Amino acid sequence: MQKSLNIAVAGAGLVGTLLAIYLKKIGHHVQVFDKNKDIREIEFSGKSINLAISTRGWKTLDDIGIGDRIRQLAIPMDKRAIHKVDGSVTHQKYGVDGGSIYSISRGGLNRIMVDIAEEFGVEFKFERKIWDVNLSEPSLFVGKSERGDWEELPFDKIFGADGAFSKIRARMQKQNRFDYSQYFLPLGYKELRIPASADGTHKIDKNSFHIWPHGDFMLIALANEDGSFTCTLFMPFEGEISFENINTEEKLLHFFAEYFPDTKDLIPELTTDYFKNPTSSLVTTQCFPWTYQDKVALLGDAAHAIVPFYGQGMNAGFEDITEMYRQIQKHGDDWQAVFENYENVRKPNGDAIAELSFRNFIEMSTKTADEMFLLQKKIEAKFTALYPERWLPLYDRVTFSLRPYTEALAIGDMQRDVMNEIMATPNIREKWDTEEIMQKMYQLTEN
Amino acid sequence: MQKSLNIAVAGAGLVGTLLAIYLKKIGHHVQVFDKNKDIREIEFSGKSINLAISTRGWKTLDDIGIGDRIRQLAIPMDKRAIHKVDGSVTHQKYGVDGGSIYSISRGGLNRIMVDIAEEFGVEFKFERKIWDVNLSEPSLFVGKSERGDWEELPFDKIFGADGAFSKIRARMQKQNRFDYSQYFLPLGYKELRIPASADGTHKIDKNSFHIWPHGDFMLIALANEDGSFTCTLFMPFEGEISFENINTEEKLLHFFAEYFPDTKDLIPELTTDYFKNPTSSLVTTQCFPWTYQDKVALLGDAAHAIVPFYGQGMNAGFEDITEMYRQIQKHGDDWQAVFENYENVRKPNGDAIAELSFRNFIEMSTKTADEMFLLQKKIEAKFTALYPERWLPLYDRVTFSLRPYTEALAIGDMQRDVMNEIMATPNIREKWDTEEIMQKMYQLTEN
Repeated sequence: MQKSLNIAVAGAGLVGTLLAIYLKKIGHHVQVFDKNKDIREIEFSGKSINLAISTRGWKTLDDIGIGDRIRQLAIPMDKRAIHKVDGSVTHQKYGVDGGSIYSISRGGLNRIMVDIAEEFGVEFKFERKIWDVNLSEPSLFVGKSERGDWEELPFDKIFGADGAFSKIRARMQKQNRFDYSQYFLPLGYKELRIPASADGTHKIDKNSFHIWPHGDFMLIALANEDGSFTCTLFMPFEGEISFENINTEEKLLHFFAEYFPDTKDLIPELTTDYFKNPTSSLVTTQCFPWTYQDKVALLGDAAHAIVPFYGQGMNAGFEDITEMYRQIQKHGDDWQAVFENYENVRKPNGDAIAELSFRNFIEMSTKTADEMFLLQKKIEAKFTALYPERWLPLYDRVTFSLRPYTEALAIGDMQRDVMNEIMATPNIREKWDTEEIMQKMYQLTEN
Repeated sequence: MQKSLNIAVAGAGLVGTLLAIYLKKIGHHVQVFDKNKDIREIEFSGKSINLAISTRGWKTLDDIGIGDRIRQLAIPMDKRAIHKVDGSVTHQKYGVDGGSIYSISRGGLNRIMVDIAEEFGVEFKFERKIWDVNLSEPSLFVGKSERGDWEELPFDKIFGADGAFSKIRARMQKQNRFDYSQYFLPLGYKELRIPASADGTHKIDKNSFHIWPHGDFMLIALANEDGSFTCTLFMPFEGEISFENINTEEKLLHFFAEYFPDTKDLIPELTTDYFKNPTSSLVTTQCFPWTYQDKVALLGDAAHAIVPFYGQGMNAGFEDITEMYRQIQKHGDDWQAVFENYENVRKPNGDAIAELSFRNFIEMSTKTADEMFLLQKKIEAKFTALYPERWLPLYDRVTFSLRPYTEALAIGDMQRDVMNEIMATPNIREKWDTEEIMQKMYQLTEN
């Protein structure tokens, strides 16, 4: 399909490793550079949020034949479990057709993917930090320290999959006419842990995405294979309820007792976890172009880091690979065409999922606890069952379809307007499932 | 007022040099670092746009007592001169009170300001490039080349006035929770030149800001002291009429003959200028925070690079200095308070002038040629004369007042809505100066 080339991938994370597998499979010589130690030999840092693999991610994994090996590590979640302060739990099914998203730990997934990549013949160069890039050669300047000796390594192509603070992109940013932005939420997050029961089972339902929604802040928990849960507390950095203010054991215990009472026996190491684990920040980065001539291309977070509230960061990164591969199949050795089409297709989708992810914090942390939101979901589900060609809920289009994110954003806005009108119907609580409401929706979705 | 400190200023441009004068005047030891040769010994690069000093800029110069020396080099412009393709020229007065803005060449201004700064006792370190910054010391890593030897120089404070691609800001960008964006217009610019007449006089009116407006592209000309004009051609990079397409002498001459026929005898070296001078890009950068603890602060383009269409880039940078000085007078040695208040006051104003500058391209390149725009200006002027406390036109508030840019943007939006309603009055062309229209404006500005 293509002449075999000497290719460097920056970053041995999920996107870099999977991209390397694709490039190796089609005949290239592929080396992956990462500044960290071999991730199979290190503890992950206590700052991870569990991943939720959904339809787009599975497609990229399945297309190269490794989906089933990953499925063995993944736990299906078919619903949200909403925890209230009175201790009650309500469930909200994902997907009108009963779809599931799959919880997996970042570390576990990354390790097995590096194993698989090595089986394919990909070479990993760990502890080799990239200090600079010559875009026009292209070449990488690699070394142990910035002030020590650097080695200049020439390649035919360089792919930057080195994350939200990509070194490859940092060099591109110095080019004329390179648009770039990084924006941090005033909200941070911290990893906590629910260990397994003594018998190794999960203490709460492993097939639910657990949420404790409280508006400005929330706690979530996703199951791991070993019986534990990775929990993430999202909270403002500053303000009344904030990481800055909750700074003593007493305040912490009081805070959890007030807002998350049913976690008392679930998180035994709360104090240790909270004060030991770092408070991480949440950044959205956007840039353009994503490529330099026919020589360098960015994928994944390096091109479009997003906030985690739609669970699409990794899935969007994997979909970049699917698109790159599609363009390679189409344009072969014409890498200029491959890169141009890749960035023109993916850039608007990167922007769309950034916007959707940004908005979804409100849905997760506020609306999931709101009775009218639940009613709206029921109306949508009923209408979808009656007229499936007329309505696919936004969440389903993002999570359980391969339709472009741009389409999800546009149709989602249209659907929001329709639902605002429907929900403003007098006595909607009583007559939500009547023929009248269904016909009103039918008319509003005409054209 | 303050304990004398050892201060570094990065950048010997206009803002860096003027800031250094202020800091030296209040007793600090000040060194200014610049990667370029002494600007008094070099030719400027043929990529400059003449500056227009207006009220905010003069205030900062006058407050430190150097305004009059600059005035000797500056040429007042009290009006726009709009050139049409039929060769006719119409004039539009600046300012309801007959204010002027002052044309000055960047090179000429920068040279005299370095002279003045040396008279004050500021030390300049030219050809000393900053390769890295240690924000928390703070210290600068300075050297001739990136791979050669660097010297680490410690300071009490570091001020980054090193322009749109600031090295100081680049280091701050790597800090957690640092918001940053750079956005390029799809439009570039190129410097051209109208030389003086044989007798040393100006070939066209020196007291006008000359504009040849054509919507997507435009030519402007501002007078220099030596009888010449610095012209700037603004045009899209790509597209039908673009720098990419106008790439032969034949196309260039045809283009100028069609759109700028009255420049035929004014720009004798058109072909040489056009093909020799670089095509420059136009960037807006925004960031926050502008300071690091009580150690490092950004001013001018390093904090907020804007597009040139409001003529406020340098004026806004100088106003940063005025605000910094105001906070120094207020808080003395409490540099934490100085920096915090400085950035909290100036950041919203930087964002506001960025937005206003962005919008003003449309006004300059399109509306100045539009009959209804001129009518609107006349209505505004009449209303201002009748009710000066009710209406200060947006241009006047930005250019001829010291009111915050944020206020200009907010009131400007309100005024736009009022004028849209006024201009929609039936037969407005006939009755624009009637009592009815004035009373309608009076009512619309009630509150």
